[in-house]
Amino acid sequence: MNIAVAQSGGPTCAINASLVGVFRQALKTAEIDTVFGSINGIEGVYNDRLIILNSAITTNADMELLRQTPSTILGSCRCKLPDFRQDDNLYKKITATFDKHRISKFIYIGGNDSMDTVVKLSGYFEAIGRNDICVIGVPKTIDNDLCVTDHTPGFGSAAKYVASTVQEIIRDSRVYSIESVTIIEIMGRNAGWLTASTCMLRANGEIAPHLIYLPEGDFDVSRFVEDVRCEQAKHQAVIVAVSEGITIGDSDYPRELDAFGHVRQSGIGKQLEMVIANEIGCKVRSIELNVMQRCSSHICSKTDIDEAEQIGAAGLQAAMSGSTGKVMYFKRLSDIPYVVTIEEGNAADFANKEKPFPKKWITDRKNNVSDEAVRYFLPLIQGEVKTAMRNGMPLHFMLR
Amino acid sequence: MNIAVAQSGGPTCAINASLVGVFRQALKTAEIDTVFGSINGIEGVYNDRLIILNSAITTNADMELLRQTPSTILGSCRCKLPDFRQDDNLYKKITATFDKHRISKFIYIGGNDSMDTVVKLSGYFEAIGRNDICVIGVPKTIDNDLCVTDHTPGFGSAAKYVASTVQEIIRDSRVYSIESVTIIEIMGRNAGWLTASTCMLRANGEIAPHLIYLPEGDFDVSRFVEDVRCEQAKHQAVIVAVSEGITIGDSDYPRELDAFGHVRQSGIGKQLEMVIANEIGCKVRSIELNVMQRCSSHICSKTDIDEAEQIGAAGLQAAMSGSTGKVMYFKRLSDIPYVVTIEEGNAADFANKEKPFPKKWITDRKNNVSDEAVRYFLPLIQGEVKTAMRNGMPLHFMLR
Repeated sequence: MNIAVAQSGGPTCAINASLVGVFRQALKTAEIDTVFGSINGIEGVYNDRLIILNSAITTNADMELLRQTPSTILGSCRCKLPDFRQDDNLYKKITATFDKHRISKFIYIGGNDSMDTVVKLSGYFEAIGRNDICVIGVPKTIDNDLCVTDHTPGFGSAAKYVASTVQEIIRDSRVYSIESVTIIEIMGRNAGWLTASTCMLRANGEIAPHLIYLPEGDFDVSRFVEDVRCEQAKHQAVIVAVSEGITIGDSDYPRELDAFGHVRQSGIGKQLEMVIANEIGCKVRSIELNVMQRCSSHICSKTDIDEAEQIGAAGLQAAMSGSTGKVMYFKRLSDIPYVVTIEEGNAADFANKEKPFPKKWITDRKNNVSDEAVRYFLPLIQGEVKTAMRNGMPLHFMLR
Repeated sequence: MNIAVAQSGGPTCAINASLVGVFRQALKTAEIDTVFGSINGIEGVYNDRLIILNSAITTNADMELLRQTPSTILGSCRCKLPDFRQDDNLYKKITATFDKHRISKFIYIGGNDSMDTVVKLSGYFEAIGRNDICVIGVPKTIDNDLCVTDHTPGFGSAAKYVASTVQEIIRDSRVYSIESVTIIEIMGRNAGWLTASTCMLRANGEIAPHLIYLPEGDFDVSRFVEDVRCEQAKHQAVIVAVSEGITIGDSDYPRELDAFGHVRQSGIGKQLEMVIANEIGCKVRSIELNVMQRCSSHICSKTDIDEAEQIGAAGLQAAMSGSTGKVMYFKRLSDIPYVVTIEEGNAADFANKEKPFPKKWITDRKNNVSDEAVRYFLPLIQGEVKTAMRNGMPLHFMLR
């Protein structure tokens, strides 16, 4: 029996670790002969662009390198399958590829859009009576906005990078003897999880960021200016963490839509910088953490990378036991000590849904988060992966 | 006898290590009683805002933490002293502070603007016959644009961050099966050193960045578009490293001047992004590495941090031997094995001057750098500092 694995959606530091999890578990499974990797997610399946992973990943050292390599070695896609009842063309191509290579287990690593593919594909195989093919989803996203699961692989590493970098920016912002405001724009689409995670700096005695704004917090520009003025009375260098998902009402700022109809947001940091320059007139700087927050493997969370590998392995185990149309997820049993189990849920409960940051953890004035959030976030960033270096730079796995 | 140390100019990852160098050397020197730290550079001296470092840095663990803490624990300034022949008011205040605290050695850690302070202050003490007070400069800048010295403390750590991060951005940029251009804007003011240092990725087998543009390379927009088109024929995801110091002719882009009359540049990445969007129309993204490139201590270069400490110690040794109006610098004897010595030069040779990236290392088409540059850069980023962590985040030294 052969299996296939693919990666989809936006890059993270942990997707390759989940691939390692699937691959290593396959090596342990006597019934499995070949592990195929699909190039560019589901696109590689319907275009029959598969590679044999057993030839690409040949040593334990390769697996270790893959674990510390960000993004997706197999490439990704933003493809959304049509409803097979309306158009089953791609589904027939996918089935043909699976049959050609005797693939009967398909593991799809991705976010909530990719879980839509798991729902549709498993639904199609069921509808045509192909119960011999199992489709399992393995979650990932730095946004942490997947339903059901306690958290998502990739989020912990992004949060560790963001907290560490914001701490360094705080040091940098305090050097001159003048008033300043630094606005740090953080990813997360419509969810404030990653921005909120900057609250973890409190655990190390840092008061900043003094203000934290999330899309879940009903942002208001004039209240924002008031908040900044208020913090300036207490701190010479005010640090603001702001989620990319925040919008300013009545703005003529142009927005783009991605293939899924999601608004592609950027620039709120720059917009707020201009607001402060106009309204307060002090030194102000906006900083976008940009793609670095999703690809900075050099400071990834060992907890995140280990869990990403484990949930990949669990995905294959579920498929081998005959499950299909399921997504693996984390269930947290305890914060201290941190205990999670890996469970399987229905893919339909994950697909196309977003889990917002809890309103109960947002302060009344909507400009910060509570200490319960610190307790939730902290376990996810623990531990460092010992990064293999060459010539003073991290070494990455590359497909030859 | 007491001594004073101060930090000036833009933050780097290595300024605190030079402070440790001065401090640790002072502890070894029997004649020295108290080490004062001046808050916000020379401003703290003429305003008599000094702290006793012996009370602030009390353990070896403190010194280790300081070495891994970015920016300047004593704060910085952008103050330029007037000519004392025209206005000696501040000079009299500085002398009063030194006399009040029996300070006879002053170590100033900073860039080419700060070395101007070393020239003027030592010149003043000489003019008024105060040969008992010695003023020594210790270099630092991520721009690497100081004359005389082989390289500057702070540059190696910035270059290690930039190379490692650009490598991660390369991984990130290649995930989708569409053509794209990624433009990474890198600091350096008028000098291309830090941008050029991305060439080090070649040592790890990376072809990207495919294009590297420096202020020293006569930038031309239409040639740039042609270069990008040419690279697109070979690579699906084209990576461009561009120095913040590059300007587009006839642009109406607004520029600001800092206190020294330097043009404060930003936004060339965004400008070139718009050029590509208009001229080629493919997916294009610009990324500013912003202040992260000067404060990301979590991936600092051990070579840089060690050298920064050594040159700080050497600065105090020079002052103790009676030198004044001097700046310490690195002289490279060999690339492989990497051997440098620490020398002293006249501060006037450093002050207000900039060392451009060598034209001989820029390719004929002015869109890349030669392998000789790789050989120059590589030794500067070697080694990692074992970062002390708390709660999954780097621990920083803080003044209590």
